[in-house]
Amino acid sequence: MNYTTLQNKFFQLKSNRLFEFFVIFIIIISALEIGAKTYDLSDNAVAFTKLLDLFITLFFLVEILIRFVAEPVKRQFFRSGWNVFDTLVVVISLIPIDDSEMALLARLVRVFRVLRMVSVIPELRILINSLLKALPQLGYVMLLMFIIFYIYAAIGSFLFQSINPVLWGNIAISMLTLFRIMTFEDWTDIQYETMEVYPMSWVFYLSFIFFTAFAFLNMVIGIVVNVMEEEHAKARAEEHPDEPTISDLHDEIQELKGMLLDLTRK
Amino acid sequence: MNYTTLQNKFFQLKSNRLFEFFVIFIIIISALEIGAKTYDLSDNAVAFTKLLDLFITLFFLVEILIRFVAEPVKRQFFRSGWNVFDTLVVVISLIPIDDSEMALLARLVRVFRVLRMVSVIPELRILINSLLKALPQLGYVMLLMFIIFYIYAAIGSFLFQSINPVLWGNIAISMLTLFRIMTFEDWTDIQYETMEVYPMSWVFYLSFIFFTAFAFLNMVIGIVVNVMEEEHAKARAEEHPDEPTISDLHDEIQELKGMLLDLTRK
Amino acid sequence: MNYTTLQNKFFQLKSNRLFEFFVIFIIIISALEIGAKTYDLSDNAVAFTKLLDLFITLFFLVEILIRFVAEPVKRQFFRSGWNVFDTLVVVISLIPIDDSEMALLARLVRVFRVLRMVSVIPELRILINSLLKALPQLGYVMLLMFIIFYIYAAIGSFLFQSINPVLWGNIAISMLTLFRIMTFEDWTDIQYETMEVYPMSWVFYLSFIFFTAFAFLNMVIGIVVNVMEEEHAKARAEEHPDEPTISDLHDEIQELKGMLLDLTRK
Amino acid sequence: MNYTTLQNKFFQLKSNRLFEFFVIFIIIISALEIGAKTYDLSDNAVAFTKLLDLFITLFFLVEILIRFVAEPVKRQFFRSGWNVFDTLVVVISLIPIDDSEMALLARLVRVFRVLRMVSVIPELRILINSLLKALPQLGYVMLLMFIIFYIYAAIGSFLFQSINPVLWGNIAISMLTLFRIMTFEDWTDIQYETMEVYPMSWVFYLSFIFFTAFAFLNMVIGIVVNVMEEEHAKARAEEHPDEPTISDLHDEIQELKGMLLDLTRK
Repeated sequence: MNYTTLQNKFFQLKSNRLFEFFVIFIIIISALEIGAKTYDLSDNAVAFTKLLDLFITLFFLVEILIRFVAEPVKRQFFRSGWNVFDTLVVVISLIPIDDSEMALLARLVRVFRVLRMVSVIPELRILINSLLKALPQLGYVMLLMFIIFYIYAAIGSFLFQSINPVLWGNIAISMLTLFRIMTFEDWTDIQYETMEVYPMSWVFYLSFIFFTAFAFLNMVIGIVVNVMEEEHAKARAEEHPDEPTISDLHDEIQELKGMLLDLTRK
Repeated sequence: MNYTTLQNKFFQLKSNRLFEFFVIFIIIISALEIGAKTYDLSDNAVAFTKLLDLFITLFFLVEILIRFVAEPVKRQFFRSGWNVFDTLVVVISLIPIDDSEMALLARLVRVFRVLRMVSVIPELRILINSLLKALPQLGYVMLLMFIIFYIYAAIGSFLFQSINPVLWGNIAISMLTLFRIMTFEDWTDIQYETMEVYPMSWVFYLSFIFFTAFAFLNMVIGIVVNVMEEEHAKARAEEHPDEPTISDLHDEIQELKGMLLDLTRK
Repeated sequence: MNYTTLQNKFFQLKSNRLFEFFVIFIIIISALEIGAKTYDLSDNAVAFTKLLDLFITLFFLVEILIRFVAEPVKRQFFRSGWNVFDTLVVVISLIPIDDSEMALLARLVRVFRVLRMVSVIPELRILINSLLKALPQLGYVMLLMFIIFYIYAAIGSFLFQSINPVLWGNIAISMLTLFRIMTFEDWTDIQYETMEVYPMSWVFYLSFIFFTAFAFLNMVIGIVVNVMEEEHAKARAEEHPDEPTISDLHDEIQELKGMLLDLTRK
Repeated sequence: MNYTTLQNKFFQLKSNRLFEFFVIFIIIISALEIGAKTYDLSDNAVAFTKLLDLFITLFFLVEILIRFVAEPVKRQFFRSGWNVFDTLVVVISLIPIDDSEMALLARLVRVFRVLRMVSVIPELRILINSLLKALPQLGYVMLLMFIIFYIYAAIGSFLFQSINPVLWGNIAISMLTLFRIMTFEDWTDIQYETMEVYPMSWVFYLSFIFFTAFAFLNMVIGIVVNVMEEEHAKARAEEHPDEPTISDLHDEIQELKGMLLDLTRK
């Protein structure tokens, strides 16, 4: 009984808009603190950020506990990827790290607190979810793109390894170089270098650019068509369902016909 | 009485197409003068531009006064952002500046006179308004993009600060560097530099490029879908409203049924 | 009488597919000759290209005369921009040029013969026409873009002239530099240079990139929406016009009502 | 009889999902082997890859024989481009190559084994087919783009050949340089170099960028519109065909009218 009262109270607190705004406010403070740490700070300021850090860590711990207690079915809590993410960020930042080697890692974990902005603001959560939903549908285009990259990286590595091992040393380095070529970043320097040995190697670069551009275009169009279809489906669902359809009219006319038949038979 | 006659006269003048063209002509002259000032001019030409400048300033003052007097409800005048903008540009250029330090500022203010082209040509005003209207709807995508930038800038600053303080010195500089990476501007130079210390740092750059490209794509699609929907809404509104709908047909058939019922009962 | 027979004959010749293919064949030969001239040629080859050039010039002259004679209404001939273009290319290449100074110009005029490919193949002509038709509708977006360029060029010239006169010397040079920035071509070099004097000048570059990207996006969307609308209009026109519409049904039902009324009155 | 039993057995084997997965598994092994070869390997590893290579070659030979035997109509087998491709890859890799000169070629042929991934996974095959289908429809835009490239390359070669023969030496080199300019790769360096001799040559570069951007945009829009139309056609085909149309309603009302006419005549 005592627990359910607490649970109800926490549920009310959790759903309170003021509490929500306060959580967002603390996340912003946490983000600003992370930003401030990238500057050279005075000793006083460093001491202050340490205190602030402790407060934020404790606040996040309390907040996640409130949300956990408020959840009626505990198993449901960890079904949500966002809750798992929040808990992980809080738990990891609780681990005391004194070792200077690990201090960097501790700092990095704290950076992910800013991502909690996404888990707290529902509109951003919806945005991310819709992005994630679009990803698998593009899976085959991305697989195709990977195959293109792999084949070109293998060919590039076989042919150009001896020309410039920094760029074409092995298949992994070659794939990185190909990504660079895809972004058009100083790609002609790479091309001119290999063209001195293989004058026809421009075919390699141009065909690669054409294929990836084509596959990329296909990916973009895939997303656009996808989004459009969702919009159309939404639009169709929004049409007034109580408005008569052609099918309804058809039934009405059938009824009329029946009545007329009765009349004629009379 | 004297004032309302003036007001009517000014209103007619303001709405006159010839007056409009003359205002546009003066703005073009003002733009050309600003352009001319960027060249080395002879003393005579400098003296002429000073005179021209005075004339343009006075003309704009008179024009805005005419428009202000022509307005029946004075409070409405400053409701329009464009009127406020026009007034500001005129008033600021009236301030006499002799100080050579401030001369540059005076010049800059005069540059904004060219923007008056937008406030005078209605088609451009509509274009800008529609752009501004689309902006807030994209707000959440831009917030998401800012969060991505902020997190990557913090991580980049923590990890690479000691490698190259010019590029990763603090979170603000890091965000500028990330913007540069987003435009693919010599991004591999930055990458190769950090890969010497952290060989796996290509993950940082590639994931950043993927995330921002994805968010950017989302933004573009958001705008396209938005525009499409507006077009559809417009198209729907343009359909002849006096044309019968399926709903109308339904009512007609109901009427027929009623008449037939009457017949059968007879 | 003699002339009309000739006219008919020429009209048949002009419309002959074999003749069309032969004209395209000569244009391709002409294109290959132009390409060949960019290589170092032997004296024999140079002599051959001179002969070939003469033949092509004469052939094009004959071809345009055939098309002119075949035209029933002579005034109509020069109404078509393509005919004017063809005639100009032919007439200018007839002018004998011996002066070595002008030899380059003569060569350049001959290059435009390749453009005759567009005027001869109907599908390309349609493509170009549709591109030209889309251009004026984008006029206001392009005007807006020009205003953005002009204002930024003026500001850039005022502020950065003393830092780097090669890039910001006057408003014309500044506009070229801004175009370079828009293509992201080594734009950070320009930025870092001015940031040494004005540390806040990144605002100038970033806002410029945002505004032009936004305006450019608007232009692209404008074209897409335009094309879509044309497609929709085409699709609507293709719907079977003899299929009954809701309006037709409405009329039919009205007729039924009239008949029923007659029945009830009886 | 013996052969048809074998054929049926092979057909069942070929259609077996487990067999399919095993083929994909071997292709992945083959891809990994190709990747591994780009690294410096120990003598043992080299010996192992040689053995693995032999096994993969034999496995692919057996697999293609199974698919060939399983095919009821043998002529149909080579109608499919994918089968021809698979057979070629297998046959060529059977040729024993000891010559060190040809070793590179042998390696390259083995790289194309990775492309067999596309011929084996149906979804990728569909993707490639739809890409190939879209290509010819874009033929005229690509022809137009080639004409633009050719004309600009000819002009560029005539004018700038003496300035920088490495970039503008002949029409082929010029076209490569123009492709570089289209990707915005250090294009201003090329521009500044020629502007020293021809100060107006920025017109050449800017007009080229505008034309190609415009043609490219046209190509993208062409693909988008194409895809959209296919989607619409699909959507229309998916509409329930047994649902009454306006045309059906019209027929029903005609029937009603006939019945009413009968009634009135009675």
